[in-house]
Amino acid sequence: MTALAIDAGGTSTRAVVLAADGSCLGYGRSGGGNPISSGIGLAAASLTASASAALLMADLPPREVDTLVIAMAGELNEDEREPYEAPMRDLGLTATPVYASDAAAMFFSGTWVDSGYVLIVGTGAAAVRIEAGEERRAVDGLGWLLGDAGSGFWIGHQVVRAALAAIEGRGPATALADLLTLELAGEPAGANGQRGRSSGTALAIEAFYRQRPVELARFAPLAFLARGDRVADDIVTGAVESLAATLTAALDPGLAGPVVCGGGVLTHHPELARQAVSLASPALRERVRIVPDGLAGAAQLALRSLGVGVDPEVFSRIAASLGALRQDVTAAG
Amino acid sequence: MTALAIDAGGTSTRAVVLAADGSCLGYGRSGGGNPISSGIGLAAASLTASASAALLMADLPPREVDTLVIAMAGELNEDEREPYEAPMRDLGLTATPVYASDAAAMFFSGTWVDSGYVLIVGTGAAAVRIEAGEERRAVDGLGWLLGDAGSGFWIGHQVVRAALAAIEGRGPATALADLLTLELAGEPAGANGQRGRSSGTALAIEAFYRQRPVELARFAPLAFLARGDRVADDIVTGAVESLAATLTAALDPGLAGPVVCGGGVLTHHPELARQAVSLASPALRERVRIVPDGLAGAAQLALRSLGVGVDPEVFSRIAASLGALRQDVTAAG
Repeated sequence: MTALAIDAGGTSTRAVVLAADGSCLGYGRSGGGNPISSGIGLAAASLTASASAALLMADLPPREVDTLVIAMAGELNEDEREPYEAPMRDLGLTATPVYASDAAAMFFSGTWVDSGYVLIVGTGAAAVRIEAGEERRAVDGLGWLLGDAGSGFWIGHQVVRAALAAIEGRGPATALADLLTLELAGEPAGANGQRGRSSGTALAIEAFYRQRPVELARFAPLAFLARGDRVADDIVTGAVESLAATLTAALDPGLAGPVVCGGGVLTHHPELARQAVSLASPALRERVRIVPDGLAGAAQLALRSLGVGVDPEVFSRIAASLGALRQDVTAAG
Repeated sequence: MTALAIDAGGTSTRAVVLAADGSCLGYGRSGGGNPISSGIGLAAASLTASASAALLMADLPPREVDTLVIAMAGELNEDEREPYEAPMRDLGLTATPVYASDAAAMFFSGTWVDSGYVLIVGTGAAAVRIEAGEERRAVDGLGWLLGDAGSGFWIGHQVVRAALAAIEGRGPATALADLLTLELAGEPAGANGQRGRSSGTALAIEAFYRQRPVELARFAPLAFLARGDRVADDIVTGAVESLAATLTAALDPGLAGPVVCGGGVLTHHPELARQAVSLASPALRERVRIVPDGLAGAAQLALRSLGVGVDPEVFSRIAASLGALRQDVTAAG
């Protein structure tokens, strides 16, 4: 029996073909696969491209795939599925897709047990309690405007606001001001020096309001670059406290973990994950696992849907063989 | 000699016809007149509607207007002016419009001296130092995403974020949670109870992301309604501190005021204006004046453009006669 697992993210989509014992046979990667952020057409194209590459590497005809699991954020309505799935049938895949949440896939990338927690901190931020493989309590993940406290957007937003406040002299001086100015030197220049306003701020305003608000997440790294600066450190501390509060709200005292941590902010700054988890519950600190994405978890969910019991051995085989395939692809690319 | 002054705001546009001695002869009011928020067509229509009503009340033929001052936020490029001005020529106005900033108009609504400060806190927030009638230093007013610290949007945003954090159990309990839930009971219901999330938050998320972010300003009143609640009080205190910092950055120690305060948040909560000004400079507290809008200031600027020296007597005449006309219109309407 053979499974195909796809982990569709906002910036990239990853696919893996694997055997029932957990051996990964083929890997593929393509562009953004989230129908909401990329649009149905592009998202569907990314899915088939990554699946097609994984099948090619595994040398497996698409019709021989016994189960297909697709992990993604959000849920598709019945009528949204057809334009998303048609290109996969055209590819020759006959298995009916089973959908999994991005949080469940991320969780199972870090563990073979079926209950615990997952803390995802990328552009957004959310904590989810998983029980018997199901999402039982989701906290935050409310998006950039209403929540995502401690996320990449949240940090980047605070960085830009603090830098502009310092530049205008209405907030404390901070190294973030110079770092932002340097970063923006590459932006197209706007109208300068209007009505008693410095040209630097006029430029920043014009550039930022032309973009989607979430683009501010790209300034999050400045907070880490400026470590030692009090304003920057306060932002990072605030993020850790927010993430700890989010995880705390998802905790059930009777459920001891593991706590699987993923998303760009936590993979780049694993110390943040450990700090937030320690703050939420010191006992959970030893149970933190950082994972790169949800692909190994989607693969595990695909095996589970085939009725394969995933034990530590199968789990380790998925992780090791997938890691080797990825390294091959990176080396070849 | 006769002047026409128009104060074009985001939600309403006001016009006044006045004689050279400051006696206001006609008043008119219409919808939003900001070309950026309302679009050029609607904004131009609001301007001519308010002007036309003021001229009618004054019983003055449009060609007899010697000067026309239009106060508005932002600046129009040369090529943006024609579609904005053509309907006013069609109305019979022959005077070439003189443009003034909304901040300068607001300032001169509160004083006849030509130097001091203006603090505007509505949906946005900004402080401006005025010297010899010109904006010499503008602080904040950077918009909802990058600044506007302490504004109606800022307060409303904090209210909604704090309420949702409390509802999710990741923030301190607050009366704002129930107030928000009540307020949202009128919203169209969204998909409920998705993936371990409470239906209340799912509903809020759907409603808010369908609107423009600045719409969150409408929740600012909840912070005042919940006075005594610690979370709500912290939000209001934070707003006062931010506004004080903004005003402080605009101060010149050699310039003692006045400090003219306007915008929806400060006209509804004048105590906020006094607190922010006291925090910025205790000496300025006695120099605070709260004004309803920039119309009296636009009228004063129109007289100045006619070469009329505006003294306390003329200033008082504008204020008193304009107040009487407005009361008439309110009583009649």
